[in-house]
Amino acid sequence: MTSPLSPPLPATEAGGSLARAGDLFQLLRDGRPWTRAELAMTTGLARSTVAGKVDLLLNSGLVVFVGEALSSGGRPPSRFAFHPQARTVLAVDVGASHVRVALTDLNGDVIAERRAPLPVADGPEAVLGYVVESGKKLLAESGRPESRLAGVGIGLPGPVEHATGRPVKPPIMPGWDGFDVVGFVQRSLPVPVLVDNDVNIMALGERAAYWPDVDDLLFIKVATGIGSGIISSGQLQRGADGTAGDLGHVRVARGADIVCRCGNVGCLEALASGGAVARALAAQGIDANTGADVVELAAHGNITAIHSLRQAGRDIGEVLATCVNLLNPSVIVIGGSMAAAGEHVMAGVREVVYHRSPPLATTNLRIVLSRAGERAAVMGASRLVSQHVLSPAGVEAALATMASAG
Amino acid sequence: MTSPLSPPLPATEAGGSLARAGDLFQLLRDGRPWTRAELAMTTGLARSTVAGKVDLLLNSGLVVFVGEALSSGGRPPSRFAFHPQARTVLAVDVGASHVRVALTDLNGDVIAERRAPLPVADGPEAVLGYVVESGKKLLAESGRPESRLAGVGIGLPGPVEHATGRPVKPPIMPGWDGFDVVGFVQRSLPVPVLVDNDVNIMALGERAAYWPDVDDLLFIKVATGIGSGIISSGQLQRGADGTAGDLGHVRVARGADIVCRCGNVGCLEALASGGAVARALAAQGIDANTGADVVELAAHGNITAIHSLRQAGRDIGEVLATCVNLLNPSVIVIGGSMAAAGEHVMAGVREVVYHRSPPLATTNLRIVLSRAGERAAVMGASRLVSQHVLSPAGVEAALATMASAG
Repeated sequence: MTSPLSPPLPATEAGGSLARAGDLFQLLRDGRPWTRAELAMTTGLARSTVAGKVDLLLNSGLVVFVGEALSSGGRPPSRFAFHPQARTVLAVDVGASHVRVALTDLNGDVIAERRAPLPVADGPEAVLGYVVESGKKLLAESGRPESRLAGVGIGLPGPVEHATGRPVKPPIMPGWDGFDVVGFVQRSLPVPVLVDNDVNIMALGERAAYWPDVDDLLFIKVATGIGSGIISSGQLQRGADGTAGDLGHVRVARGADIVCRCGNVGCLEALASGGAVARALAAQGIDANTGADVVELAAHGNITAIHSLRQAGRDIGEVLATCVNLLNPSVIVIGGSMAAAGEHVMAGVREVVYHRSPPLATTNLRIVLSRAGERAAVMGASRLVSQHVLSPAGVEAALATMASAG
Repeated sequence: MTSPLSPPLPATEAGGSLARAGDLFQLLRDGRPWTRAELAMTTGLARSTVAGKVDLLLNSGLVVFVGEALSSGGRPPSRFAFHPQARTVLAVDVGASHVRVALTDLNGDVIAERRAPLPVADGPEAVLGYVVESGKKLLAESGRPESRLAGVGIGLPGPVEHATGRPVKPPIMPGWDGFDVVGFVQRSLPVPVLVDNDVNIMALGERAAYWPDVDDLLFIKVATGIGSGIISSGQLQRGADGTAGDLGHVRVARGADIVCRCGNVGCLEALASGGAVARALAAQGIDANTGADVVELAAHGNITAIHSLRQAGRDIGEVLATCVNLLNPSVIVIGGSMAAAGEHVMAGVREVVYHRSPPLATTNLRIVLSRAGERAAVMGASRLVSQHVLSPAGVEAALATMASAG
């Protein structure tokens, strides 16, 4: 369902001109070829204005000639289109115990990738040092000049103040609180750096790749922790302080006497995260230390592990039923390492959600496993950058940088 | 916190021209006076193009002359501005047992108002017949011609498919399911008619009047039922099927053995709505039939009623704590008839929300009583219409209608 409200006019918001090259570029983003005359007709701008802006975009490489249009006589007009391979993006997924750095184009297609086991607890200098070093190596190895790098997108496993890119009291990231991630990376790579919570960018990545037409999508990550990324009305929702989607510490009825690391009792994370399920199995004398162990046991048919995963799914489903009431998504995607246990968790989730949620909200609801899998975060990090640098303001900034560089 | 993503270009979405009068009008909506030269400079459009569009807007009455600017020589340029009194709006609040019809200007300022006790269960013809009749009377009495009516906004106490304005299986509205509200009203008043759930428009109204700078606001209505309207990133969120914000049937731990009218157990509405609290008091031998009775008893110092209201506040707070985790609003507004019990309910809400929610999400959180009070819905209904008719497409449509009529 679409809102009847039209989006605000970019010129009003930015205080700029409707005739900016960055605004004109939005028409070209659809990927199909345009002529100057078509752009002038669609925008109402003067032909000479359009020609000047198109020249700027051609110089930038963001737009390329793609041939000539049919002509009714005289010289056939040139056609040009957006060229997503013109620039590269470094897309970074910092997990609790690993770092993945991918080089992509502006469409999010991965050109090359590196991955290392590196605990986030080693601190920002160590982790971001590896990011910068790997990024430079990936660029060099694939023969892409640093001057064509459009930006760096980084997902971190904790709350991030999105406007500044600084982590805010992240529970599993010692040394990172308030750290200037953007400034640190820009000292080596002087391009736009965008930082966000990892689950937010997983939601962006999953949607961009597999659900582009879905405007209301909820992505749940079930791993060491539990969190969610919320897309409503087609837009990622971060909330007033950037903590939206924090499902891990919602109270679950079954957990009244289980203390969570946050100090409260009955939090979803204390019952249904990988570590919580492993601890519950260990208490029954089963050899399980991590969520991965539980997934492994279930894969080998251990009935206690299977029951525990299904119960974790029910606990998650209890919270998701509330999310369905509140947000009315049409797709819920379950990802993270515990999603590897596939149908055991899903069965529990579906059982409770379809039991508890109002019929109207579940008629068109799909609950699915992540298809992006372990690449969801880098896909989303790439998207975060391309959305930014291809926006009217982003294109203007890139053109201005080119102009000042001579 | 703002997203780095720029809004899409209206021209791209609508397939229209950047130089439409409706787009130009967006600059004028700020209310301050502009000259033609300033509009041409800001938009990059040709002076002649701007002059033509301004003439259209002056003819429509949406824009009026407001004097002359200082001149450096020659004839001083004219200044003009948006004229919110140019058009009227009928803003309608259909409650479970009353109807309120207000005539407002495009700013939402109320010109005149009528109200009648009329049960929604009397069906759509009776209720909407009253709406149309009252609307025509209000226009006549205040000397406003029907030709200047910009639109009708209607809030209904149930789920509404916003795109079509049809109620969808509304539980307390017999005869309304799938009814063509828009078509019925337009037979008598041929203007844009916008229909939405009452709590959604209460959220719109409360925000427009009192929290215009707050982008993440949650409005909770506690009355015969319990529901919420969600504003995230500055936009009302309706969800995939228009059921977003349906808090009344979220499960509350305390209610495991209380059956709700929806067929599930433990729903918030079965514990904390006005009727539920009255029933709980009646079971203790206290003479209370409705939520209003409970509020009255509490106002007279009945300690059992006060305790019950505080417990209802705690139950509501339990669900709101989840909302805070999920949505991270900066303002939660409590409205509806039970909000009249003021601090008793609020004390319970605050107690649980601040206990259960993560510190980061509550540092800047305000939990307040509705200030719009019983006018929140008509204020929001007016807003729904003005947002629509003052949008680029809405202004274009109005100009086209004038042209074909004239």
